[in-house]
Amino acid sequence: MTGRDVTLIQQASFEDRSVAAAVRGELPLSLRLRHAGPTRFIVGYELTGPTNAPLIIVAGGISAGRHSISSKTFSEPGWWESQSEALSGHRLLSIDWLGADGEFDRPIDPADQAEAIAALLDALGLGRAAGFVGASYGGMVGMHLAARNPDSLGSLLAISAPARAHPFASACRSIQRRALDLGEAGGEPDAGVALARAMAMLTYRTPREFAERFDASPVLDGGRLRVAADPYLDAQGQRHCRRMSPAAYRRLSESIDLHRIDAADIRVPVTLAAVDSDALVPESDVRPLAKAIPGSRLHVVRSRFGHDAFLKEDAQVAAILIRFLASLETTR
Amino acid sequence: MTGRDVTLIQQASFEDRSVAAAVRGELPLSLRLRHAGPTRFIVGYELTGPTNAPLIIVAGGISAGRHSISSKTFSEPGWWESQSEALSGHRLLSIDWLGADGEFDRPIDPADQAEAIAALLDALGLGRAAGFVGASYGGMVGMHLAARNPDSLGSLLAISAPARAHPFASACRSIQRRALDLGEAGGEPDAGVALARAMAMLTYRTPREFAERFDASPVLDGGRLRVAADPYLDAQGQRHCRRMSPAAYRRLSESIDLHRIDAADIRVPVTLAAVDSDALVPESDVRPLAKAIPGSRLHVVRSRFGHDAFLKEDAQVAAILIRFLASLETTR
Repeated sequence: MTGRDVTLIQQASFEDRSVAAAVRGELPLSLRLRHAGPTRFIVGYELTGPTNAPLIIVAGGISAGRHSISSKTFSEPGWWESQSEALSGHRLLSIDWLGADGEFDRPIDPADQAEAIAALLDALGLGRAAGFVGASYGGMVGMHLAARNPDSLGSLLAISAPARAHPFASACRSIQRRALDLGEAGGEPDAGVALARAMAMLTYRTPREFAERFDASPVLDGGRLRVAADPYLDAQGQRHCRRMSPAAYRRLSESIDLHRIDAADIRVPVTLAAVDSDALVPESDVRPLAKAIPGSRLHVVRSRFGHDAFLKEDAQVAAILIRFLASLETTR
Repeated sequence: MTGRDVTLIQQASFEDRSVAAAVRGELPLSLRLRHAGPTRFIVGYELTGPTNAPLIIVAGGISAGRHSISSKTFSEPGWWESQSEALSGHRLLSIDWLGADGEFDRPIDPADQAEAIAALLDALGLGRAAGFVGASYGGMVGMHLAARNPDSLGSLLAISAPARAHPFASACRSIQRRALDLGEAGGEPDAGVALARAMAMLTYRTPREFAERFDASPVLDGGRLRVAADPYLDAQGQRHCRRMSPAAYRRLSESIDLHRIDAADIRVPVTLAAVDSDALVPESDVRPLAKAIPGSRLHVVRSRFGHDAFLKEDAQVAAILIRFLASLETTR
């Protein structure tokens, strides 16, 4: 464990394990952040699925929290509800990202998230996870966990995650962060978040999908032009500013751009998945990473949904998940 | 001439034609705008090159004004200075777009710009232009002139201009207009313009160019992350907010999304050029337009500069211009 400095302040209080289909908890942690130094956090987590099943850490994009799939206990749909069947029969652990509550407005590295997960595994006495399934930012965090705490996971599946951000994707995110700045400077923080999110949606999806969905002619409405995609972009923006503060959005967005991993440091078995239409994490960036990790496996998802394919291409993603999870059972 | 209602209010005062290498003028016009109704404008224009040479109307993107290339009279570089040699030996007419001064904050259609150009040709007694060379928005305006006033031009060259905006490109521009709104709402109109322009630059160029130019790692600066493209995006934004107001930017941006032309309405010889890496005006949108216009010619520019190739791929663009202009000489 390199560069780690974890102090467990108190155990989280569990609900009754024998009854609960899922538990949520908040674990206070002291971490030495890579850029921001020693910091105390409370990490929210959710643990769901049979207690005797193989443990899988599940992590998604920067706006995906601890509720990955629904359960009897927490019945609202999770961010990866579409994969609940593929993930069934496993015990799943997910966290709320450090910084997602917006109370910490300093740089957060994806390696910091990996430290928090490692500390959580220790603190909850969960031992080693059989696998880590991460998509987008979650995949980057998984790489850091595999590099820094290889003993904490058996195998990694990283979907739409590169060794480092593409310079164009970083430029897109930097511009989104300027929208957050502009909103805050003008006393309209929610409008800044909504604008940043709408900008981000353009990079999560593809021109092809937009051409299919938003083909209607623009209309003049009150002297201003409305284009066919506006209601969709409005809804995405409005929804996002209810769940993420400018500080949270800024720091998690930055965190993606801080991601940088050396393939040689990853010492657990790795499966990668790329999406042929992903403009943020191009297939051409994932292929060399797969080549640089001996024994790794690469899946390519064919999709019109770009970076969001992990949330939209249910059948292809399920097939990748099922194959990855099956490989864990046999090596358990 | 369909839907045209031009009243010439007064002749522009020319400088001495026999001496001046170039003249600038301001022509007051009354136009019946397609969406905004009757409106008075003062249209700024520049006329340069030998007075006895074939007249070419030259029009660029929404931020390109009447000064296309330098002359003895107006020696500062024009927006298409890189093509001054290819364009030499011709008399060039360019305008400042209606709405570019920011004093008119209502919808402007590209057809309105075509009306202004037709009125200008009449008012200045220039008669018929041998050709119209338009790139980006200028190409769209050229299509409207060719559809509405086919007698006013001999032939059209439209570079990186489609029959209608791609829905994804419209969505990108709509988001840029929200940045203008957010800046104005927060009392920071310049910051809104700078942000909108920086967003636009991401669509004018390509991921490939960014990967080549902005490969350096991001750095933390005063607690905030700066990515390698930031200085470039800053400079583009700052420069733009000195030359375009929010209202001008909004209305010219909208105007691109209002563009819609029926190929069957274009009744002058047409040459089209598409750029293989153009994300705003995909080659796949220009090809069907070329097919739909009988006798049209299509050039495809190979470039890593995307939509901006008309400003960057000097040799390929010059070859297209020279060929187009030569075809005019022979049919004059």
